[in-house]
Amino acid sequence: MTASSDLATLLVSCPDRKGLVASLAQTLYGHGANILDADQHTDPVAQMFFQRIRFDLSSLTTDRVALEAAIREVAGRMHMDWRLAWGHHEKRLAIFVSRYDHCLYDLLLRHRAGELACDVALVISNHPDLAPVAAQFDVPFHHLPIDAATKLAQEAAAEALLVAAGVDTIILARYMQVLSEGFTARWASRIINIHHSFLPAFIGGNPHRRAFERGVKLIGATAHYATVDLDEGPIIEQAVVRCSHRDSVEDLVRKGRDLEKVVLAAAVRWHLEDRVLVYAGKTVVFD
Amino acid sequence: MTASSDLATLLVSCPDRKGLVASLAQTLYGHGANILDADQHTDPVAQMFFQRIRFDLSSLTTDRVALEAAIREVAGRMHMDWRLAWGHHEKRLAIFVSRYDHCLYDLLLRHRAGELACDVALVISNHPDLAPVAAQFDVPFHHLPIDAATKLAQEAAAEALLVAAGVDTIILARYMQVLSEGFTARWASRIINIHHSFLPAFIGGNPHRRAFERGVKLIGATAHYATVDLDEGPIIEQAVVRCSHRDSVEDLVRKGRDLEKVVLAAAVRWHLEDRVLVYAGKTVVFD
Amino acid sequence: MTASSDLATLLVSCPDRKGLVASLAQTLYGHGANILDADQHTDPVAQMFFQRIRFDLSSLTTDRVALEAAIREVAGRMHMDWRLAWGHHEKRLAIFVSRYDHCLYDLLLRHRAGELACDVALVISNHPDLAPVAAQFDVPFHHLPIDAATKLAQEAAAEALLVAAGVDTIILARYMQVLSEGFTARWASRIINIHHSFLPAFIGGNPHRRAFERGVKLIGATAHYATVDLDEGPIIEQAVVRCSHRDSVEDLVRKGRDLEKVVLAAAVRWHLEDRVLVYAGKTVVFD
Amino acid sequence: MTASSDLATLLVSCPDRKGLVASLAQTLYGHGANILDADQHTDPVAQMFFQRIRFDLSSLTTDRVALEAAIREVAGRMHMDWRLAWGHHEKRLAIFVSRYDHCLYDLLLRHRAGELACDVALVISNHPDLAPVAAQFDVPFHHLPIDAATKLAQEAAAEALLVAAGVDTIILARYMQVLSEGFTARWASRIINIHHSFLPAFIGGNPHRRAFERGVKLIGATAHYATVDLDEGPIIEQAVVRCSHRDSVEDLVRKGRDLEKVVLAAAVRWHLEDRVLVYAGKTVVFD
Repeated sequence: MTASSDLATLLVSCPDRKGLVASLAQTLYGHGANILDADQHTDPVAQMFFQRIRFDLSSLTTDRVALEAAIREVAGRMHMDWRLAWGHHEKRLAIFVSRYDHCLYDLLLRHRAGELACDVALVISNHPDLAPVAAQFDVPFHHLPIDAATKLAQEAAAEALLVAAGVDTIILARYMQVLSEGFTARWASRIINIHHSFLPAFIGGNPHRRAFERGVKLIGATAHYATVDLDEGPIIEQAVVRCSHRDSVEDLVRKGRDLEKVVLAAAVRWHLEDRVLVYAGKTVVFD
Repeated sequence: MTASSDLATLLVSCPDRKGLVASLAQTLYGHGANILDADQHTDPVAQMFFQRIRFDLSSLTTDRVALEAAIREVAGRMHMDWRLAWGHHEKRLAIFVSRYDHCLYDLLLRHRAGELACDVALVISNHPDLAPVAAQFDVPFHHLPIDAATKLAQEAAAEALLVAAGVDTIILARYMQVLSEGFTARWASRIINIHHSFLPAFIGGNPHRRAFERGVKLIGATAHYATVDLDEGPIIEQAVVRCSHRDSVEDLVRKGRDLEKVVLAAAVRWHLEDRVLVYAGKTVVFD
Repeated sequence: MTASSDLATLLVSCPDRKGLVASLAQTLYGHGANILDADQHTDPVAQMFFQRIRFDLSSLTTDRVALEAAIREVAGRMHMDWRLAWGHHEKRLAIFVSRYDHCLYDLLLRHRAGELACDVALVISNHPDLAPVAAQFDVPFHHLPIDAATKLAQEAAAEALLVAAGVDTIILARYMQVLSEGFTARWASRIINIHHSFLPAFIGGNPHRRAFERGVKLIGATAHYATVDLDEGPIIEQAVVRCSHRDSVEDLVRKGRDLEKVVLAAAVRWHLEDRVLVYAGKTVVFD
Repeated sequence: MTASSDLATLLVSCPDRKGLVASLAQTLYGHGANILDADQHTDPVAQMFFQRIRFDLSSLTTDRVALEAAIREVAGRMHMDWRLAWGHHEKRLAIFVSRYDHCLYDLLLRHRAGELACDVALVISNHPDLAPVAAQFDVPFHHLPIDAATKLAQEAAAEALLVAAGVDTIILARYMQVLSEGFTARWASRIINIHHSFLPAFIGGNPHRRAFERGVKLIGATAHYATVDLDEGPIIEQAVVRCSHRDSVEDLVRKGRDLEKVVLAAAVRWHLEDRVLVYAGKTVVFD
């Protein structure tokens, strides 16, 4: 097994044309990198090309600087957007919460079980309630209260903490505040949110009660990147569970919690493993 | 095994109060009917009681007329809505179609395999295309073209056929016409429709393309009783299937077809077996 | 809403005959009990009748002693096996664990979230590792080491703790020891176990590796009552999750953990709510 | 959109080594072929490399003969097993059936709906019952009765028909005969079978009854390539559906039919699209 510090992942998107696969493969091969996984997708409607390449650096015949320069050269020539993630850098996560603890516990337990390749740098909350949970897992907890008047100041304080801690990715683990447009834009494609979803969709408050009143037979959850347009960001993962007339509103809430945990964890894992590409308001997930 | 002609099914709904279960059970027992299945539900929010009782008539000590009179008496005293279905009467079905054949084939094949306890009395279509399919299964086919000017006349012609054929239930098996308010009202809770459903919901035309553009990870289908408010009728059954960036619009359409068949067939079977109660815009499905 | 202490649940099974529903409903009604939910099933092959009745005691016209005596009288006359659970008595749970913590955490978190109506009386383990987890939730933890020579003595020690704590139900939350025949028999239908399951089944050790080698496309988990015949007890709940050639053995193990949590929690909740009846080596789950 | 006759698919498997992706991509690029989709997998345990490349031939700068020769040269040098499928050749299918019609109807309807890119060359059956179904779809039907004494002769007759019709792939659509070892070996990885599967597995006859008796909560179906070891061939697809104590044996059979159709159709589609690679008794499905 290759040590994860000897791995790297390259994510690429660009207008489709001939020779893209060959030029990247040739570049990696020429530097002695060994491709372990390559997954590719072409959107025939958008005429866009997407690729994820995971490769082994342990037998590199040049060095990382030279390899990155060569990739930059090819990418420039082919008009590629690209992102290179080195395995020796674990992503640093911030988890935003309010009062619900189920997603926080779930993420921290999975992290401890080795399911999530990242550092959990800190937990930020607008309420003090979940400080003991963070403490159990030795994760710094920051209580940053918020109201309409202090919203931007609170976000600025949060952002200072994020920068100081070298955070790469923010997880909104049932954080019950709407982030400002500016904050969302600065962290574009780096904030993952989880929310319930229903067939049909119920806009507004208390959706589980409305799902109950409508007699739906399925309830769902969606994980997506946060955008200014709330709940309209690129979808990373979705799942549903059956329900029936026997389910009370409380049962629906309970089933919703279970879904939220599983769906959020999947989205976070795929993001951490650089499996998600965003374009045109949607995602390619190389799972 | 009891012959199905010796079975009957009683469906009851009423405001909740004490003694409902006992009074019905006592009535059936007093006439020699043997309860085979009884399923009950109380909606604690609406304070409503629902029950489905399936019973065996083969050892009735009185007769059907006396039994029905006794049930009517109890129901009146307890302010029950009730419906009694005798097993010797198979429901008579009309299937409305346009050009898509997948749901029609699916229903006719299931009927022939003995999955659907009903008579398929006739197929009505606004296009002639599917006449050969009906012919293969020896089901009368009626071509009733329609346009904006002839809508009410076409519905009247359809209704005459339905009445003449003694139809109980209409299945809209991808019938691409909106029924008039009057028609829908006259057949309330007796028309079952199938349509696609998505998370989030896409209103308007070409939903599979919009689901593709939005990058959804699930697509779904919903079977419901038709109401004037299109696609807002009481939901009988829903299901979803996974999709990904690899699915083209055509793939989504294909997956949608598979879902529509399964979901519609389940809804039809439950309706035919008198398992569905409608109240307050939703259903109780005793499955 | 009725306080749960004013509720009771009656579970009944017996050879099928006429009048069973009526006699029980009449008895409850005659004492002023209000039936909230009644679910019934008849197995036409075994000719057996099963019923679960949940009822409200708040307007009882007699008292609990008189009601229980009346039920006993009817049950005797009708040859019923029966079990009456009073809502004011919460079941007392013992959780057996070894070193895996995911099911233990899951149960304790669900209990704290109010999903499981029970007291968690104690945790028993053959290893000391999970003592801190129990401590976080203020649950007594007992370390009872075991080896081939001490097995019966260890079980006796465990049983003494169970009796002293008034335990009703044992959950084997990934407890990696086989219980003796005597212990299993004494706690028949009161020990819930969780284990992986595969299509096809893999007997013996390291099943996830063998599932990987066989290239299965689904892996599953089964919760069942423990019997002497290991993994052959009455099945309470099962679920599966998709996998593919991309899943390593470690991925399968991770997916298995998620399944085990969800499936075990469902089985425990149904058991605690007296929804499960065992007969002829299988279950009726009134869900 | 590229016409399908201008597409080709290359499937490759070989021991893993550096430069595999680059050498194939370079070869295709050098001949003017445009890679539309490339999916790759490395099995780190078996140290094996697998790749599926779908490419567009419409702007080939050489010709098909030269391209195939170049691929052969690379494959030889890299010790690759390879298979090249030209889009202008539709695979030719034989469907083997006995008396059950659900899978046959399902495949023929999907074919007519354009879901399956193949020619259905003929239907072979050991019973005459389904001749009318084949006739409805204008597919030649051959009745080849079989018993223990005539087994090899019947298979020889079938094989003569298959060869005469240029058949590539055989679908056992609920064909209730065990094929001989010789026949199976000659058509290795080209016969797709569907069978029920259960948790736990039930060996022997009447599995739905045994699943009923055991009270399983899920039933499943598995599509696999046929091997001499019956039901032990490489798994292509699996799915399950929930069941409960309310399901009779007949309900389980009905649910099983629905599963069989969906699972078999998926396996056939993936095979026809050259998405399935077999190695070490299992499959890689590039879906």
